[in-house]
Amino acid sequence: MADDVTTILPDPVLGARHEAERRAVAAAIAIPAHVVQAKGHGHAGTAMAMAPLAHVLFQRILRHDPADPMWEGRDRFVLSAGHASLLLYTQLHLTGYDLSLADVAASRQLDARTPGHPELGHTPGVEMSTGPLGQGVASAVGIALAARRDEALHGVGTGLFDPTVFVLAGDGCLQEGVSSEASSLAGTLGLENLVLIWDDNRITIDGGTDDAFSEDVRARYAAYGWRVLEVDDFRDLAGIERTLDEARTRSGRPTLVAVRSVIGAPSTRIGGTPAAHSGGFGDEEVAAVKTALGFAADATLDDLVTEDALAETRSALERGRRLHEEWRSAYERWMEEAPGAVMMRRCSGVASWAPDEGFAGSLAVEAGLGAIDEVAAPEEGASVATRATNGKVIQALQAWGGLLGGSADLSGSTSVAVPGEAMSATNPGGDFVHFGIREHAMAAMLSGIALHGLWRPYASTYLAFSDYQRPALRLQALMGLPVIHVYTHDSVAVGEDGPTHQPVEQTAALRTIPGLDVVRPADGAEVIAAWRRILAQPTGPTALVLSRQGVPGLPERAELDAAVAHGGYVAWQHGEGDALAIVATGSEVQLALAAARTLADEGVAVRVVSMPCVEWFEAAPAEWRDAVLPPTLRARVAVEAGRGDAWWRWVGLDGRVVSIDEFGESGAGDQVMARRGMTVDAVLAAAREVLPA
Amino acid sequence: MADDVTTILPDPVLGARHEAERRAVAAAIAIPAHVVQAKGHGHAGTAMAMAPLAHVLFQRILRHDPADPMWEGRDRFVLSAGHASLLLYTQLHLTGYDLSLADVAASRQLDARTPGHPELGHTPGVEMSTGPLGQGVASAVGIALAARRDEALHGVGTGLFDPTVFVLAGDGCLQEGVSSEASSLAGTLGLENLVLIWDDNRITIDGGTDDAFSEDVRARYAAYGWRVLEVDDFRDLAGIERTLDEARTRSGRPTLVAVRSVIGAPSTRIGGTPAAHSGGFGDEEVAAVKTALGFAADATLDDLVTEDALAETRSALERGRRLHEEWRSAYERWMEEAPGAVMMRRCSGVASWAPDEGFAGSLAVEAGLGAIDEVAAPEEGASVATRATNGKVIQALQAWGGLLGGSADLSGSTSVAVPGEAMSATNPGGDFVHFGIREHAMAAMLSGIALHGLWRPYASTYLAFSDYQRPALRLQALMGLPVIHVYTHDSVAVGEDGPTHQPVEQTAALRTIPGLDVVRPADGAEVIAAWRRILAQPTGPTALVLSRQGVPGLPERAELDAAVAHGGYVAWQHGEGDALAIVATGSEVQLALAAARTLADEGVAVRVVSMPCVEWFEAAPAEWRDAVLPPTLRARVAVEAGRGDAWWRWVGLDGRVVSIDEFGESGAGDQVMARRGMTVDAVLAAAREVLPA
Repeated sequence: MADDVTTILPDPVLGARHEAERRAVAAAIAIPAHVVQAKGHGHAGTAMAMAPLAHVLFQRILRHDPADPMWEGRDRFVLSAGHASLLLYTQLHLTGYDLSLADVAASRQLDARTPGHPELGHTPGVEMSTGPLGQGVASAVGIALAARRDEALHGVGTGLFDPTVFVLAGDGCLQEGVSSEASSLAGTLGLENLVLIWDDNRITIDGGTDDAFSEDVRARYAAYGWRVLEVDDFRDLAGIERTLDEARTRSGRPTLVAVRSVIGAPSTRIGGTPAAHSGGFGDEEVAAVKTALGFAADATLDDLVTEDALAETRSALERGRRLHEEWRSAYERWMEEAPGAVMMRRCSGVASWAPDEGFAGSLAVEAGLGAIDEVAAPEEGASVATRATNGKVIQALQAWGGLLGGSADLSGSTSVAVPGEAMSATNPGGDFVHFGIREHAMAAMLSGIALHGLWRPYASTYLAFSDYQRPALRLQALMGLPVIHVYTHDSVAVGEDGPTHQPVEQTAALRTIPGLDVVRPADGAEVIAAWRRILAQPTGPTALVLSRQGVPGLPERAELDAAVAHGGYVAWQHGEGDALAIVATGSEVQLALAAARTLADEGVAVRVVSMPCVEWFEAAPAEWRDAVLPPTLRARVAVEAGRGDAWWRWVGLDGRVVSIDEFGESGAGDQVMARRGMTVDAVLAAAREVLPA
Repeated sequence: MADDVTTILPDPVLGARHEAERRAVAAAIAIPAHVVQAKGHGHAGTAMAMAPLAHVLFQRILRHDPADPMWEGRDRFVLSAGHASLLLYTQLHLTGYDLSLADVAASRQLDARTPGHPELGHTPGVEMSTGPLGQGVASAVGIALAARRDEALHGVGTGLFDPTVFVLAGDGCLQEGVSSEASSLAGTLGLENLVLIWDDNRITIDGGTDDAFSEDVRARYAAYGWRVLEVDDFRDLAGIERTLDEARTRSGRPTLVAVRSVIGAPSTRIGGTPAAHSGGFGDEEVAAVKTALGFAADATLDDLVTEDALAETRSALERGRRLHEEWRSAYERWMEEAPGAVMMRRCSGVASWAPDEGFAGSLAVEAGLGAIDEVAAPEEGASVATRATNGKVIQALQAWGGLLGGSADLSGSTSVAVPGEAMSATNPGGDFVHFGIREHAMAAMLSGIALHGLWRPYASTYLAFSDYQRPALRLQALMGLPVIHVYTHDSVAVGEDGPTHQPVEQTAALRTIPGLDVVRPADGAEVIAAWRRILAQPTGPTALVLSRQGVPGLPERAELDAAVAHGGYVAWQHGEGDALAIVATGSEVQLALAAARTLADEGVAVRVVSMPCVEWFEAAPAEWRDAVLPPTLRARVAVEAGRGDAWWRWVGLDGRVVSIDEFGESGAGDQVMARRGMTVDAVLAAAREVLPA
C-alpha cells in the first residue's frame, strides 16, 4: 500500500485482535473528528489518520505507566507535529492518564488542561511543548543522546536507563532545517534508541507535497546513516506493531519509520485533502465518518467510547503497573549491586530535574557550588576576557559532573573546551558533545537533555549566532527548562570578522524573550557570582553573554554574590547626595567607571550601577531596586555596546543612552568600538548633558 | 583521489596549460597564506585549497566582465563560506576588477575595501554579504529561482537571462539547516541553473567532520533530486574545468560538485588540520609553502604576482569584454524582436534594483502605486483584519507584476494567496512560490530574489515564526535589500493555537535589527498607506506585522499617507492644551481610542498617537516628532500587545506602558487578550495614573 494510497479505502481499522479493540481504535479515530467539528476549530486530520498507530504505540509498544506519568523507566513519546494534540490527548484519556473525556472535549478552551498544542506541565503524559515545527524532532534527539549516555555511564547491561525515544513528525517537521541538523547528528552519534515516525501523508496546508517537498525522505535519512523502516498500511494494527517492534530493536542507528497515510481518513470527502488539516469536516461528513467506523451517525462523544473499548484501552494501566514494578525490582537490585560510585553519581552526585520541581537535590547543587569555589576571580585591573573566566567555571563544573554540553564547532574560541572525549557512536558515555555547525539543533537538543532530567545542559556559540536558535530558545523559556547558553564575542569588539560576526542587536533581542535570563557580566568576578545564582536556580533558561576581549577586573565589591543575584548593584560610588547614576553592563562597565572617576575628580556625586541581568533586577525587591537606582535620582546614563532602545526604561526621557544602534564593520575591535561611540569620552559627554546645571 | 586524500601530496598545481598559468595559480594559493601570516589573523586554509578551482572558475567558466561587475548578463558567484574571503578577493584582483593587491593586503583593516567577510557594496564583484554559514547557499537558491523565472518569462530560447549561479560552500554551510531547506526546495523546483560547489575538506574548527558530520552528503543531495558530480583532484585545473563545464550544462536538476580537498595545501605541517582554518601558519611554514609553489622562500606579496602570471589572469578582461559584447548584441536583437509586451514588462514594467541605486525606475514604482490606488480601505468601524486588507494590496500588486513571492505553506491564512500557478520544475515562469514549511530558507531566498534585481520579493508566515528567520533578516538588513516580510497573527489574539503560536516578543525583537523597518498598521487604511511608502522606498527590508482578527476602521484621518510615512501621527485628538498622549500600534490603537473617548467625555485634553513604524518615526524631522509628541507633554501611556520594554523610551519614567510581557495561553483570542491585560479598562487605569492630579 505504501506507494499507491490515492483514494480512501474502506476498512478504517485492520488487524484488531477482537471487536473491543477495533471499537477502541474506531473511537480514537472518531474523537478528534467529533471534537473539532463540535468546536468549529482545531486539527483533526492527522489525529484521525495516526490513531491506529498511536493505539498500537500506547497499548503494545511504549513502556509507560499511565498512573505515574513521570516514571523514570518510561519510554518517551514526543509529538513533534504538535497541532495533532488530539491524537495524544485521546490516547492519554483512553489509556488511563488523569485526563477525562470532558478534558479532551474542552480542548483549546481557556483554562482547559488540553491546550491547542501540547504544553509541558499542563497535561500529564505530555513530555514537551511542541507546535513550532521541527522542534520536537530536534529535542527528541537531545533526549535520546542524554538517555544513551545515562545507560552507558550508569546502567550498562541492565537496560534500566535505556528508554526508547519515539517522536512523531509530519512533512512540516521534516522540511524544517532544525530537524535536518538534528537528524544528521543523530546519525553520526548512532542514537539507536531513537525512533522517528514520519506521517507521510503527502499533504500540507497549501497543497500536495509535490509542490514544495518532492525529495526522497527515505533516501535522505539513509544518507544520514539511519535505518529506514516502513509501515505498509497505516490502518493495520498488526503491521504497525511488527514495524514498531523492529524499530525499537537496537541496530546501532536511529530508525525512521515511514507511514504512508491518508490525512483525515476514513472521511471520503475531506480525507486526503489539505482541508483535512484544520477545521471541522462538516456535520454530514463527521456523521459519515462515524458510520464508517461502526458508530451511529449521531453518536455523542460518550457514545464513541463504549464500555468494552474503554476496558480494553485501560488495560494499559495494568500493563504499566507491571512494567513499572519489574523496572522497580531491577532498579533496586542495581542500587544494591552497582558500584557505589556509579550509584551515588547517578542518584545524588549530579543535578536532576523534573518539570514540577525544577532541579532538585540540594546535595548536587551544593557540590556544584563547591566546585565553583575553586575558581579564582581575576584581580583588580587584570585584563581577562569574561569568556576565559567562564571557561574556568565550566571546567570546574565538568569535574563535578552535573553539566552536559558542548559547542557548535567553537569550543576553543568560546572557551568551553573541557578535558576528556567527545560523545560518539562508539563512546556514548563521552564527556561532551560536538554539536557540529548546527546552532539551532544544538539549542533544541539542550531542551531534550534537560527534559531527560539528569544533567544541566549548556552549549556555546558566538552571540551573533544566537539568531539561529531563537525558536528553540523560546520553547525552552516557555517550558522553563534550566539550560545554559554560553554566548561569547558579545559586541563589535569582535573586530576583524566584521558586521556579520559582530552582535549589535542580539543582547537586546534575547531580553525580549519572556523567562529567559540574559546575563552580561562586567568582569570575571561577576561571571563567578552569576554562575552561583544560575546553579542555585532550579528552572528557566539563561543566556550568558561574554566578551571575547579582555576586560579589567573591577575594584573589589562587598557581597558580590548577592549583588549579582539581584541583577544590578552599585559597583562604585563617590560622594554624598546623588547627582548622577551611570548604568552599564559587561565590557562597558569599565567605561562607566572611568567616566565616573573623572567626574568624581570634579566633585560630582556619582554612582556606577553594574546591571548584569535586567531580568534579575526586575525581580529584585523594590527596596533593592530603589536603593540601587533611587527614584529621585533622575540624572541617568545607560551604556551598552548594542541596541539601546530598551535602556530608556531605566533612564527616562531626561536621560541618555550610549549605545550602538547600527551594524559594525570590519577592523580592529578597539577601533570599531571607538568608531561606534563606545568611549569614555562619549559617556562623559552624555553624563554632562544630564547633570543638573 | 576523491577518497584517499589523507596526506599532503606534492605538485600543488596540476594541469596548467603553460608556465604562466601555473604561476598564476601558485600566486593565488600563496597570497592568502602570505596575507594572513603578515597580519596574524584571518582565514587562509580554504582560500589556498580552493585557489585552483577559483582560478578555473574565474578564467574559464564564469561569464563575467571584470570591467563591469554589474553586467546584467553575468553568471553569479556566491561565496557562502564567507570566511574564505581572500579566495574571492585574490581572484577579483588577479582578473582585473578594481581591487589592488594593496587592497587585498589590507584585508580586515578598518576602512579596507576587503572586509573580513565579503560585503555587498564594499567590493566590486562581491554578489552578496556572507559569513553566517548556510546563508549564501540559501540565497543562491533564490537568485537561481529568480533567474530561471526571468528566462522563462522574457528570454525563452535566447539564453539572455539565463545565468548560472555558482555557490561555494564548506562543511559548515552544509550542516546548517537553512541550506538543507533551500537545497530540498531547489531540487523540487528543478533549478538546473544552480551549481553548488562543496569544499569537502573533512575538517571543521573543532576537529574532523567524523566527529559530528559523518553523513553521506552526496547521497543526501541525490535524495533532494540533485545531480552529483565530482572533482577528482582539487589541484588539477583540467579536471576541475571538465567537471565545472559539465556542471553548468542544463540537466533539469541543480548540481552538486563535490571537491575532496586538503585545507591549507600545500602546507605539509598545518595543511589538512583544523589549525589551517584560522590564523597564520607561521613564518617557516609560509616560506615552505612558497618554496613548494616555486617562489622564493622570502617572496614578498609583489614577488608572488609575476608579470607573466598577471598577464595571464588579466586576459579575463578581454574574455569578459567579448562575452559582454556578444551578450549586448543578442540583447539588442531581443529588444527589437521580442514581443513588445514582453520587452516592456522586463525593461520598465516592473521594478528593478541594484545595490548602488536601490529600486530604480520611477515608471515601475508609479505603476505599482497606481495598482494600490485600486484597493479600497475598509470604512470606519468596519471590522476587517489588517491581513485581509494587506491581501488585497498583494493581489493588486501581483497584477502589476513587480512582486515575486509566496508563503511558507500559509498562503491562505496569511492572506497572500494570488491567482495563477505556483512556480515549479515544469513551470519556472509561475506566478508565486510555494516555499514549503521552511521559513528560514524562504527569508534567505528573498535576499537572492532581490539580488537578482528584477522583482521586489515578499514572503509570508505567522509572526511567531519570524524567529526562524532572523539570521537571514539580519543579513538582508545589513545589505539593505528591499524585501517585504508579511507577518500575520500578530498577538496573543491568535487564540486557541496557544502560546507557541502567539507572538509576544517578536515585534519588539524585530525592532532591534538595525535597518529593518517594522510596520504594524492599526487598520486597513494604514496598511494601504504603509505600502505606498514601502513601494516608494528603494532599499531596506520591511516587516509588515498584521492582525489575524478583525480591527475596526479608525475615524478618517487627513493626509494619512504622509502621516504613516512619518511613522507616527496624531490619529485622534480632543480638547485644547495637552494633558495626555496615548501611543499605540496595530490592534491596540482601538483600545487607546476607546480610552481616550472616555477621558474626553470627562473633559481631558487627550491625543491618540498611532505609531505604525517606530523606525520611520525616528527618521522623521524633529518638528514632526515634536508636533506628534510635544516634549512638554509628559503624561504618556504606550499600549502594545507585546513586550513593552522599549516603549518606555517614548513615555519616560513617569509614563506607563500597557504591554504583554509574558507568554500567552490557549483559549479564545479575545479572552486571552483580556487576561493578558489588553483592555480599555487597563489603558484607562494607566492613563489616570499618569494624568496630572
